[in-house]
Amino acid sequence: MAKCRFCGSRDVEVHLEYARLSLCVECFLKFFERKVDSTIRKYRMFPKGTRVAIAVSGGKDSNVLLYAVKKLYPALDLIPIYLNLGIKEYSDHCEELVREITRKLELPLKIFKLEDEGFTLDDVATTRFRRKICTACGLIKRYWMNRLAYEMKAERLATGHNLDDLVKFALNHYIHGDLESILRLKPLLTSGMDGKLVAKVKPLCEVTDFEDLLYAEYSEIPYRSIDCPYATGKGYDRRQNLMKNILTVMPDFRHVFFKSHLKRFLPILEKGYELEMQLKECSVCGMPTIREVCAYCRLKEKLTNKD
Amino acid sequence: MAKCRFCGSRDVEVHLEYARLSLCVECFLKFFERKVDSTIRKYRMFPKGTRVAIAVSGGKDSNVLLYAVKKLYPALDLIPIYLNLGIKEYSDHCEELVREITRKLELPLKIFKLEDEGFTLDDVATTRFRRKICTACGLIKRYWMNRLAYEMKAERLATGHNLDDLVKFALNHYIHGDLESILRLKPLLTSGMDGKLVAKVKPLCEVTDFEDLLYAEYSEIPYRSIDCPYATGKGYDRRQNLMKNILTVMPDFRHVFFKSHLKRFLPILEKGYELEMQLKECSVCGMPTIREVCAYCRLKEKLTNKD
Repeated sequence: MAKCRFCGSRDVEVHLEYARLSLCVECFLKFFERKVDSTIRKYRMFPKGTRVAIAVSGGKDSNVLLYAVKKLYPALDLIPIYLNLGIKEYSDHCEELVREITRKLELPLKIFKLEDEGFTLDDVATTRFRRKICTACGLIKRYWMNRLAYEMKAERLATGHNLDDLVKFALNHYIHGDLESILRLKPLLTSGMDGKLVAKVKPLCEVTDFEDLLYAEYSEIPYRSIDCPYATGKGYDRRQNLMKNILTVMPDFRHVFFKSHLKRFLPILEKGYELEMQLKECSVCGMPTIREVCAYCRLKEKLTNKD
Repeated sequence: MAKCRFCGSRDVEVHLEYARLSLCVECFLKFFERKVDSTIRKYRMFPKGTRVAIAVSGGKDSNVLLYAVKKLYPALDLIPIYLNLGIKEYSDHCEELVREITRKLELPLKIFKLEDEGFTLDDVATTRFRRKICTACGLIKRYWMNRLAYEMKAERLATGHNLDDLVKFALNHYIHGDLESILRLKPLLTSGMDGKLVAKVKPLCEVTDFEDLLYAEYSEIPYRSIDCPYATGKGYDRRQNLMKNILTVMPDFRHVFFKSHLKRFLPILEKGYELEMQLKECSVCGMPTIREVCAYCRLKEKLTNKD
């Protein structure tokens, strides 16, 4: 029978196929936290005295992120941000869960309601954008997370993307040769425009979705386990299946490919490719954009203009 | 019922899923030949007056290549080369098939027997190289194909690699971040060292393995359909399954990814990466190498030195 690789205990509960590693619950939790901490230190995600905003959705990844970061860095100036997008039942349930975990962790909480902007995501679902609702939602979330972090004077915005998320994106971008997106797939994306574009960090980028899930369960972290009602797109399913299919043949695919991306491709692509992105202020809201009016303001105009 | 997209005939025999294209046999053969011809022209594979060596193995791909090129360019100075590697039963059967097709096409044939070098591939199977026999075989083939082409004053060496082959290699190299190999995955690889490194061309690089197979069958091209007895390695199976799994989810994967490779990655990787390969002459055989003694001469030394 398997023994825990670290302590020798026979209470093995966790088996990580990609690493052929068997662990007891206690050693797994330590292993997970050490891994997250090592990512944070390796990429200097939280320099001393930095205010860090954490984007929380009520889902497992961002709740795990909040919990682990608070445990590892109890003195960090940490502000969770929740965007209530106005998705019937879903958004309010997620908000409740976020309120619960931040209360338990004794953290402040910044809540932004999209309806204060004059529309909700359910409104988007009734327009011609309904087929691209996940794209619109992503745009809205990126915009407001960045803007709220900036307004709160945070120098870092942390998100709960795990290794599976990043590899799914990477795979898709590599297949389609989307170099601009590939260049943005980094554990730490630096800031721009005197901080108006807040630096983004992904402390969970080296843990798998399965490790994330186990950590949430064993630590009894509350989270919403039912997907967003709009997360049913074809692209979404396809990316899920593509990686699942590859993993059956190559269990260490995510780790090998992500390492190649970071260590081999990024340095050379960054040298050969100059991101021609002259950031300027959006003429409507003043936030960073490469056009005259930023993508969010253009979307909002279309959604709230009833003519 | 489906009609042939090109001529409207109801005798549809071929359905190409990646392109949602249904064709009758006659239109498929024309479609295939037009595609190969367009690849040859696009990459200027056969400039006027060039002597072209074709590496033939007796398998479907290289026999299809030989047949299609002879049909498309009947006046081309074309010399098939067959390497008899000394694999019991297999090598002689393949040689017979190559003799048959070159006789039918009224082409000369250059045959090289590895045993003239003092060893065969079956000998390799009895040494400590047996676990890496496919690697050794690849090395031997690349070396002799290049050397024979050079000695026959050919300016091009054509091989039968099809889109599936190249995408399988590409996928593996991208996952592992093997930039040197990625940079060599090209339809036309230019020559070096005053022609001692002969330019390599891959006229079938835009047709799929399935199209290749159909063309062989419908044109009644003789070929060996049973794999080499040594082609059973884990890496081989894994690459096969990896791509098969991806294709079930994304039927146009090969075309989309290979296009990204050629149009998006190669230009930028070539700019950022300088292949530091100072070619010089091998001190034993005089052929191109980046070391003092070339990889083939080092392997041969180990295999024929009985001490």
